[in-house]
This record gives sequence, C-alpha cells and structure tokens, in this order.
Amino acid sequence: MTQNTAEKTPVTLLGLGAMGTALARAWLAAGHPLTVWNRTPARAAVLAAEGAHVTASAAEAVAANPLIVVCLLDDDSVGEALTGIDLTGRDLVNLTTSTPAQARARAEWARARGARYLDGGIMAVPPMIGAPEAGGYVFYSGSREVFERHQKTLGVPAGTTYVGQDAGFAALHDVALLSAMYGMFAGAAHAFALIRKEDIDPASLAPLLADWLVAMAPAVHQTADRLRSGDYTQGVVSNLAMQVAGTPTFLSTAEQQGVSPELLSPYFALMRRRLAEGSGEEDLTGVIDLLVR
Amino acid sequence: MTQNTAEKTPVTLLGLGAMGTALARAWLAAGHPLTVWNRTPARAAVLAAEGAHVTASAAEAVAANPLIVVCLLDDDSVGEALTGIDLTGRDLVNLTTSTPAQARARAEWARARGARYLDGGIMAVPPMIGAPEAGGYVFYSGSREVFERHQKTLGVPAGTTYVGQDAGFAALHDVALLSAMYGMFAGAAHAFALIRKEDIDPASLAPLLADWLVAMAPAVHQTADRLRSGDYTQGVVSNLAMQVAGTPTFLSTAEQQGVSPELLSPYFALMRRRLAEGSGEEDLTGVIDLLVR
Repeated sequence: MTQNTAEKTPVTLLGLGAMGTALARAWLAAGHPLTVWNRTPARAAVLAAEGAHVTASAAEAVAANPLIVVCLLDDDSVGEALTGIDLTGRDLVNLTTSTPAQARARAEWARARGARYLDGGIMAVPPMIGAPEAGGYVFYSGSREVFERHQKTLGVPAGTTYVGQDAGFAALHDVALLSAMYGMFAGAAHAFALIRKEDIDPASLAPLLADWLVAMAPAVHQTADRLRSGDYTQGVVSNLAMQVAGTPTFLSTAEQQGVSPELLSPYFALMRRRLAEGSGEEDLTGVIDLLVR
Repeated sequence: MTQNTAEKTPVTLLGLGAMGTALARAWLAAGHPLTVWNRTPARAAVLAAEGAHVTASAAEAVAANPLIVVCLLDDDSVGEALTGIDLTGRDLVNLTTSTPAQARARAEWARARGARYLDGGIMAVPPMIGAPEAGGYVFYSGSREVFERHQKTLGVPAGTTYVGQDAGFAALHDVALLSAMYGMFAGAAHAFALIRKEDIDPASLAPLLADWLVAMAPAVHQTADRLRSGDYTQGVVSNLAMQVAGTPTFLSTAEQQGVSPELLSPYFALMRRRLAEGSGEEDLTGVIDLLVR
C-alpha cells in the first residue's frame, strides 16, 4: 500500500469476476483501502496477497465502508448477495450488467433499504480497467449526490460519464452503444465474407474498412438533429428512393460472392417499407421510427 | 478555361446525372478540356455554358478523346450508350455502379472492342467531388496501365485507390465498405430507437455513439489478422460464450423500450449458431464463416 492511503476513500467491492478483479487491482494500485467479498473465496485470496481486506461474508464487507461497489454476474446475483443485509446510509454503486428496468427496480429496492443508489454501465473490457489511455469509461445514472461525492474514486478504474438521475439511463446508454457496435460488427462481418473466396488479403481490406467506418460514424450527429427537428428531408444528398434503388447491387453482389444476405436484408427491408409509405425524399432517419412500437 | 489547358489531359465524359455533373465540374475547374454527352441534352447545356464541349451523340464524344469516363445509371445503360461505337485504342474508365460480375463482364466486352478497361467504385456523394478535404475517393481495378497513365487526371475529382487487376475488385471493395456502413447505420438506428420514448436528447447520445463507433472500428484489424491466421481463439478477451450470455440483456432492453429487435437478432442468431458448434472460446470472427456458402 502507498503512504497516502489515509487520504483515499475506502471501497468495498462485492464480486471478483474478471471485471471485479480488474476494478480491485485498479483501486489497490491507486492506494485505496479495499475490502472485498466474493461468493467463491479462491479469487479473493489472490487479492488478499495484493493488499485487499477479505471478508467471509457480504454483510461484513458492507459493514466495513460507506461506499459499496457491486460487480456481480447479473441482477439476480445482486439481490441474492445482499439479502437481509443492512444497507442503511450506504452509497451503493451497482456496476452489474442489467437492463434499464432492472436498474430502476434495483434503485427502488436500495432506497427501501436506506441506501443511496447509483447505477453503472461499463464501456470497457477488463484489460482496459486502470489504463486511462485505453479510453474505457463507465456510464453512471441515479443519485447525483453519490456520483459527485465519489467521482474521483470511481474515476480510478475508468472514466466517468453521468447521464441522468433516472437509474435506468446508464444501462440504457450502455446497451444503446453496444447494440450499435454489434450492428457495425455485423456490417464488417458481411464485408469480410464478401472477399472470403477472392484473392484479397483481409489485412488489406481492414484499413480501408476501418477508415470508412470512422469517416461515416459522424453521420449519427445529423440523424440526431433530424430526430430532434422531425424534418427528415431538408438538405438530403442521397435520398431514400436513391438508396433503395441501389440495394439490388448489394444483394446481387452477396449472391455472386456466395454470401448470405441475412445481416444486410433486415435494414434494406425497413428502407423499402419506409419508401413504400411515401418517404422517398427523406434520408434514412425514418427507419428508426419503424423500429419503435 | 485556364491558360494551361493545353497541358491537361482531355477527358470525354458520358453521363451527367448528379455524380457525372460533379465530375464534369471538377475537371472543368482544374482546366481539363472536357467533352460531354448525356442521353437527355438539358443537363449538358448547363455544362456547355461552363466550358464543356457538348456532342450530339455518344459516338462523337468517344471519338473526341483517348480517355473515356463513363458514369451512367447502371450497367445496362453502359451497354446501350456504347452499342455500335468504335472503342479501338480507347482507355475506358467505367465509374457506373455495378456488381463485381457486371464489371468483369464489361471488361471482357471492352477488350473485345479493342479498348483498355478500368473499373471504378465511387466512395463519395456528389458534394464531396472536387473537394479533396472531404475525403472522398474512388476504388479502381482492371488495367494497371490505364490507371497509371491517368492517375493524375482521375485524381482531380477525388482520391484514387487501385485495388487490383481483376476488374471486379473495385465494385467488390465499394460494395463491401458500403455494406459495412449500412450495418453500422442499422446499429445506430437501433440505438436511437432505444431512447426514442425517453427524456434523452438524441443530440446528447450522438457524440457518445460516434466516439464509441470510432473507438470500436479498428477491431476490424484484429478480425483480419484472425481470418489470415485461421486462429479465432488466441488472446480473446471477451469470448463468444460470454458475449452470447450477454445477448438477453440487449433483447430484453429492446423489449422494454418497445423496440423491434429485427436489426439486432440476425447477428445474435449467428453468434448462437457458432457457439452451438462448440466455438465458445473464439471471438466473433467465426460468424463470418457462417455467412459464406
């Protein structure tokens, strides 16, 4: 432990999976007194050797410090681990992956037990934790008071981005960004599939693909502006009618290359549906409205 | 026309749609003598006033210069416009949107008529043409000789990237990158749909979304390395089994937010299929192999 431990906020951490262990090491490395508990003790033993205080029960760990960080497998595990434990006056920061509804219910549950609640959605994989240059960060929502009181401590393992007092908003932002990422990965998978049987090195396609995606990503700003204004037609360069007219080239190319169009077709189908509704002068923003019931 | 017109390669351009007109203006602005033809003459008249030489027939335009650039509606239009025209000794650069198979067939067709053939796939919208700072470029494939002889002239409207002697490769690269872009747009559409009924400003989500996509795009380099090596498991941080275990959170969140999962489900379905094949220790690269017949 470093000499200035006394100045650092003590942290209790419940859950030592890959992510929890990475969080623990980041706080230990920064000199925060750390109390840990894990359902299976073996993982805790390793951290004890690195300076963590290990408790035999979750209740002891919760009793040890006012700031409790939870990083368990899922929301059910949070309920189970904390059943019957006195949370009065605790600042509960829940980094467990959950849906917005689970986060909101967990916030109510925590309030009913006398705790202040802050939910978190981690935008990083374990190797990015404690390495600020890796760019990982955590979305936080719920108690602004808890966020402000502990922002510096919470900022040790990864960046912090507060997105509102609705406890569900951190999970919602987390899921939104990761969903978009899976869409991008799906598009990239289709692109690599198209060249799979050609004499084209995937490593020569990759930089072209990465640069193109990076160049096109800022299009989401215009999408946001259109959603705000409700005007999907002003200043459109390549309109929906033109883009739908281009889709047969994409589908024929997939066919020629022996590639299933299953990752591309659903978006094209929505583009066609929107066009059929008479929205040919719009850009692609109208597809979003077709997704929402 | 500028004074140094004599030094600039004369260009014949067939097709004056939005893209053709933008190309024409870029060459005129750079001082290239330009001969144009368009099936409907009205668009050509505008360019005549800007210094272009307008011909009454495609045959006259082709006879005017050794370098012929074609930018028509589709591949059929190329065949129609050039039917019965002597192409002997011409350098034919075809920027018309086509599939790889169409480009390859058109290359054969051109060779049989005595022309050298270079195919192009334009990675830009018309406002980006003639504005190098906008980052637009054109993929070229086919005759390397034609590409090298005219690279400077072809580089006037947009950047040039040569991707191989196979005439279909320009179209293939074009379609691959644009397909990936549609995947990213589909993911972003899902993300915006998730917050549509919440008190979250789309313009506050947009920068988070853009930054995240930009940060994740370079993952395609690792995908390429795995495709080359055939090893989809070495050094995997978040493996397929873990990622599939996370998908219910994404689908439940969509359900909670009243959002159709149709843009997300197909990729998740492939992830589950690959996992069911016993590939839980891989990353997501194996999904690509499921797409290829």
